[in-house]
Amino acid sequence: MSHATPSTPDRVHLDNGGRAPWHPLARQAFEQALADGWADPRRLHAEGRRAARLLDGAREAVAAVLGARTQEVHFTPGHTASLHAAVASAAAARRRAGSAIVTSAVERSALLHAARAAGQQSSVPVNRLGRVDADAMIAAVRAPGAALAALQHANGEVGTVQPVEAVHDAARAAGVPLLVDAGASVGHVSVPQAWDLLAADPADWGGPAGVGVLAVRQRVRTAATGPEDEDQWAPGGVSVPLAFAAAVALQAVEADRTAQEARRRDLVEHVRAQVSRIPDVEVVGDPDGRLPHVATFSFLYVDGEALVTELDRHGFAVGSGSACTASTLEPSHVLAAMGVLTHGNVRIALDRGTTADEVDRFCAVLPGAVARVREMLGVGGL
Amino acid sequence: MSHATPSTPDRVHLDNGGRAPWHPLARQAFEQALADGWADPRRLHAEGRRAARLLDGAREAVAAVLGARTQEVHFTPGHTASLHAAVASAAAARRRAGSAIVTSAVERSALLHAARAAGQQSSVPVNRLGRVDADAMIAAVRAPGAALAALQHANGEVGTVQPVEAVHDAARAAGVPLLVDAGASVGHVSVPQAWDLLAADPADWGGPAGVGVLAVRQRVRTAATGPEDEDQWAPGGVSVPLAFAAAVALQAVEADRTAQEARRRDLVEHVRAQVSRIPDVEVVGDPDGRLPHVATFSFLYVDGEALVTELDRHGFAVGSGSACTASTLEPSHVLAAMGVLTHGNVRIALDRGTTADEVDRFCAVLPGAVARVREMLGVGGL
Repeated sequence: MSHATPSTPDRVHLDNGGRAPWHPLARQAFEQALADGWADPRRLHAEGRRAARLLDGAREAVAAVLGARTQEVHFTPGHTASLHAAVASAAAARRRAGSAIVTSAVERSALLHAARAAGQQSSVPVNRLGRVDADAMIAAVRAPGAALAALQHANGEVGTVQPVEAVHDAARAAGVPLLVDAGASVGHVSVPQAWDLLAADPADWGGPAGVGVLAVRQRVRTAATGPEDEDQWAPGGVSVPLAFAAAVALQAVEADRTAQEARRRDLVEHVRAQVSRIPDVEVVGDPDGRLPHVATFSFLYVDGEALVTELDRHGFAVGSGSACTASTLEPSHVLAAMGVLTHGNVRIALDRGTTADEVDRFCAVLPGAVARVREMLGVGGL
Repeated sequence: MSHATPSTPDRVHLDNGGRAPWHPLARQAFEQALADGWADPRRLHAEGRRAARLLDGAREAVAAVLGARTQEVHFTPGHTASLHAAVASAAAARRRAGSAIVTSAVERSALLHAARAAGQQSSVPVNRLGRVDADAMIAAVRAPGAALAALQHANGEVGTVQPVEAVHDAARAAGVPLLVDAGASVGHVSVPQAWDLLAADPADWGGPAGVGVLAVRQRVRTAATGPEDEDQWAPGGVSVPLAFAAAVALQAVEADRTAQEARRRDLVEHVRAQVSRIPDVEVVGDPDGRLPHVATFSFLYVDGEALVTELDRHGFAVGSGSACTASTLEPSHVLAAMGVLTHGNVRIALDRGTTADEVDRFCAVLPGAVARVREMLGVGGL
């Protein structure tokens, strides 16, 4: 089995953030768990107990990578569900302390929406590189009424790593739990220990979609907010084969993470340098303190959706913060918060299987694609 | 590929309600969708559009079976999530009409808990066969303040089919939406058209766990209750391979449903007759108006958990309404509402692959297992 993206051979898929192809070992693990762990792990019979053992093994494997205890690790229906449940239940348990939920301005939409639903969300600004103002965030966490703080480990749209350690130190001292969204970083860089709740995304590291990971330190109080259920974090229970495949994929990517990190960091370095030569472009995000596999650019005089479509026609799948979904055509709140161009944005996230040749081909095709889109918009001469 | 339960060959798995082994075609479909539909269906590029097409195809296939329009069918993270979201959002949209949520007393726990969280849950009693008192339910639906009614198509624990048509007629006339939990019936018997919202469970019909189905008629108003998200019913989106496998499994089981229904109805008939010869047993549920594949018995002077364990030791996996999970040791609210024995309960749900020989072996082993458990409890002489 190869690591190749399972699609048309001459396609180059560079939109692997949040939904990467499955790692081959995840597929094997899924098959195995479908044979051994298809039953309901809450049942008392042999099939149920076997499924329960697989699920426990999956929790244990994920816990080891996260630096958590097994009983601190929970599977959820997905990364959005993890963030929704973490925010709601941590805020509910702290209602007496206050209702302020302190976040960076560049958290994932799912987290910002959950914060707005659960309390008074207050955004801490970021600088032009996308890094949160740590002093401002620490001040907000120390202010009376802070129920919960949330800071991503790294931003999935622009790659910038956040100062979670400094914020966590201050939050601990203030008695405010810190939720770290590590959905764009786990499996790609080492996981920080500076968290009280941590959400991670199997679909981002080569595991399945349809399952999420939420770790909650034992010292952290949470309160169930939805209807009563045996499983607070995955009402009705989780699919054992999905959880098992997620855990096996995480172990597999951790096994050569350092090599993959260096390899992809070099490729992204190369892309950033090549793209910066295109006229009227801004290479977005921190050049150093960043995820190894993510690169983002904003082009003046270009429509993001048109550029995604033009690149797609030439065989390259990329993301865009200005046209990232078919249904949401609003510009990225991340780019807006950074004060960079929200138009003409392109984001690539390299998979572990992405080759240097594929990256070179992308760099060769991009300038022409930008020029053609500019021409279409009648700004070719600018 | 055979239909055999994927576990130790001499094991007989008779606990297939809510978590049946995957249909072989579901596995094929999953593999195909993993190759073609792993990308995020909300993306604009070719991979995203291909995933979106698979997802649309899955919705269309499920809609055809349910007698719904494609746009009325939604995938959710699972059956519990379907019930939680359906109750919360239908009740929220009807807040002006009232807060009463009328249910039968034998709805699934997930539904009852959701109803208690969303409004004033009021239970309508059932008779000794487990069938709801239709007149009482109709009166409750017509009473002022009714926001929502919920009635299962058939009870998964005891098999009894409910009078959804009569209740739906009254509910429509009263302007109260009816949620039908068809999680134990879709794929086994024909689906009633008497619903405004309908929840169905892929894991029950030989599709994957980790995905659910919720159909909402276009005329029904719902209000989102959780944090804002593009997808009201599956925040963050659903796994395309899981949804596709669920739809293919449903088409596959529908293809020979009538034959399977007759075959399993005969087997259950046989089991009910055999078991009724064991001393001090109550064969539970309606002998005629029932699911074809479910049979439930309650034994006097027997502990349900001990009987499940004893049968497990002899190679038979069964469920129990008095010890149905490892974590919940409360007796079944369904059996309690029916006024039948809540102790010593055993439930079997035949899979499509369950053979007559397996059923015969179960019938041969059961009397001895019951006698041994009674002996252990010191009631052997009774």
